[in-house]
Amino acid sequence: MGSIVKQLAVLGSTGSIGQQTLQVVRALPHRFHIIALAAGKNAYLLAKQINEFKPRFVYYQDKRPSARLTNRDYELLSLEDIASHPQVDIVVIATSGKAGLSPVLAAVKAGKNVALANKESLVMAGEIITNEAKLNAAQILPIDSEHSAIWQCLSGESQPAARLILTASGGPFHRYSLAQLKEVTAEQALRHPSWQMGRKVTIDSATLMNKGLEVIEAHWLFNMPFDNINVLIHPQSIVHSMVEFVDGSIKAQLSYPDMRLPIQYALSYPERLANPQLPRLDWSNINNLTFEQPDLDTFPCLKLAIEAGKKGGTYPAVLCAADEVAVELFLSQRIRFIDIAYIVEQTLEQHQVVAHPSLEEIMAADAWAREKALQLVSGETL
Amino acid sequence: MGSIVKQLAVLGSTGSIGQQTLQVVRALPHRFHIIALAAGKNAYLLAKQINEFKPRFVYYQDKRPSARLTNRDYELLSLEDIASHPQVDIVVIATSGKAGLSPVLAAVKAGKNVALANKESLVMAGEIITNEAKLNAAQILPIDSEHSAIWQCLSGESQPAARLILTASGGPFHRYSLAQLKEVTAEQALRHPSWQMGRKVTIDSATLMNKGLEVIEAHWLFNMPFDNINVLIHPQSIVHSMVEFVDGSIKAQLSYPDMRLPIQYALSYPERLANPQLPRLDWSNINNLTFEQPDLDTFPCLKLAIEAGKKGGTYPAVLCAADEVAVELFLSQRIRFIDIAYIVEQTLEQHQVVAHPSLEEIMAADAWAREKALQLVSGETL
Repeated sequence: MGSIVKQLAVLGSTGSIGQQTLQVVRALPHRFHIIALAAGKNAYLLAKQINEFKPRFVYYQDKRPSARLTNRDYELLSLEDIASHPQVDIVVIATSGKAGLSPVLAAVKAGKNVALANKESLVMAGEIITNEAKLNAAQILPIDSEHSAIWQCLSGESQPAARLILTASGGPFHRYSLAQLKEVTAEQALRHPSWQMGRKVTIDSATLMNKGLEVIEAHWLFNMPFDNINVLIHPQSIVHSMVEFVDGSIKAQLSYPDMRLPIQYALSYPERLANPQLPRLDWSNINNLTFEQPDLDTFPCLKLAIEAGKKGGTYPAVLCAADEVAVELFLSQRIRFIDIAYIVEQTLEQHQVVAHPSLEEIMAADAWAREKALQLVSGETL
Repeated sequence: MGSIVKQLAVLGSTGSIGQQTLQVVRALPHRFHIIALAAGKNAYLLAKQINEFKPRFVYYQDKRPSARLTNRDYELLSLEDIASHPQVDIVVIATSGKAGLSPVLAAVKAGKNVALANKESLVMAGEIITNEAKLNAAQILPIDSEHSAIWQCLSGESQPAARLILTASGGPFHRYSLAQLKEVTAEQALRHPSWQMGRKVTIDSATLMNKGLEVIEAHWLFNMPFDNINVLIHPQSIVHSMVEFVDGSIKAQLSYPDMRLPIQYALSYPERLANPQLPRLDWSNINNLTFEQPDLDTFPCLKLAIEAGKKGGTYPAVLCAADEVAVELFLSQRIRFIDIAYIVEQTLEQHQVVAHPSLEEIMAADAWAREKALQLVSGETL
């Protein structure tokens, strides 16, 4: 970090996390500067962002964001070149899907601090990424509210945690029976009770797959055995996660569900910054915080993810890929909600695992799983 | 701290906190050694403790603990000499009442680390004690569960907190009306729903005076303005307190109500030690954590304490003294429960405050308040 004003590269700037990252930068312009923006398909919004933030480096995937582009004084670079550029202090990985993996690797190999919102990279290649980060003294700064909560609770503790407790809202179908779940629509699944998020992660929240992916991430981020990571359903989404220490003491982090807080914490760390736009908990309106054990029989995706994480190797990559295909099929109304878990389970069962895989082996497993998942739908009646 | 085995002086070893401190030492004999024991009136228990822990230094108040004393190989010292002895690493102040004040001062003047359970010393002489601690690089390690929670939540944070939120169980009369409170007996008041404590602090919990004293302590321990200290009623006594930071993030510390945890944390700090005797939260049995604003009209002692803390000077000493007298009168059935607040309020109203008082002026205010509180009862019908 060369200066007090941190130079940020935001990869995935037009998505939900990307846009909220830019909101934080707007609120704290004396502390953060956008040096690079990268986005996939939303050329119109990217053009607006380029006009506003005047980044030095830009990447875009599909078409040039020329519409309404008043500022053209930037250099086009690849995602990997942006992620490893010497002038970048923090690389914000806000892309979704496996597109995040390659820039994350480029960033940690260059010893950058990576503010990580992308789930797939750690789930698919947690071993490779954490090893490279260690080798190159790169720090992974989690942006997910759960991992940010754990990270905040670990602050100042000189010893490893004894147990991590990830909270989950339970999603829109909390306490639904299997019979009820058979009938739910994509529209219902997209109505999350407490968080505003992208479509893929909203469906993953409804199946609890999202929490399973977070358990795998937590395993890698905090070097914690799977048996010492628990999940608790907490529908109010106020307690974002907890850490238990060797003496039995537990620390929890609380706030309203607003991603700008974990984003800002990752960017400002080790400092905290006052930001009047961030809401404060109003305890005159918070009477009840409830906690329940997750129902693994009705929501088997959580169990599938933890099992895939424990088995390791290419299993988590297969889990991710099969889930992505299944969620797309559900959103396009080709399968039912409960078929998502079935497709993931069947794909995992048929997979020939590779232990300690290379990046190429991970990508091959990903491709295999996508094909297999699609075959399962086209080849048989679910 | 000269060695890995910390040398502890336990002042008030026969009281509730003193006995629990010795339980922690028994569980972790490779980390803690009792070098000194001091107690007031319970000569029989002190003798047993001397036989078991074989301290080098002993203090006793009333009569020699000769009954059943098999070990006589100790030196008799004053409380102040024990608290400042070069061979002592941590002075545990587990005495109740103003008897704690003089050894706390001796300890901080000697630059000792003081594990502090005694409430009166910081409430009566917070300015003097914290100034002396700063001057002599002595650290005050809070043992109260609320202040320990705040201290744990502040760990690793490089900036001051924005707000402290102290939780209170609400005591046995939570949600009682004023009419109901007029009828309650000492026996009922001594039945605390979640904590096992001494008689004085149990009554103070029932009136919420205890929480008021803790607000004053928190003000001194964490250098926090009174307007940024809030109290929340949390009947389950699982969340022991919370800290809000400048970015709106809140950290909370949770555990079952068991004083051995904050005692052990103060002794082991900055480490945490595994202790199988400390209970772990069982989340399959914790479904609901509730929070409410305190009812200051029905429980005016909390308001009286915060006002006395804000006004400062000798007011907090007068508050303490009047409350101690009033609680004794209630326990001996000479006044009603609701008269405790009345006596404290009347005594405070008639007090001529001294700003930035010396120790002598604090002691004079204490003596004046005791006399005044007694006069209020004998001189008029309540």
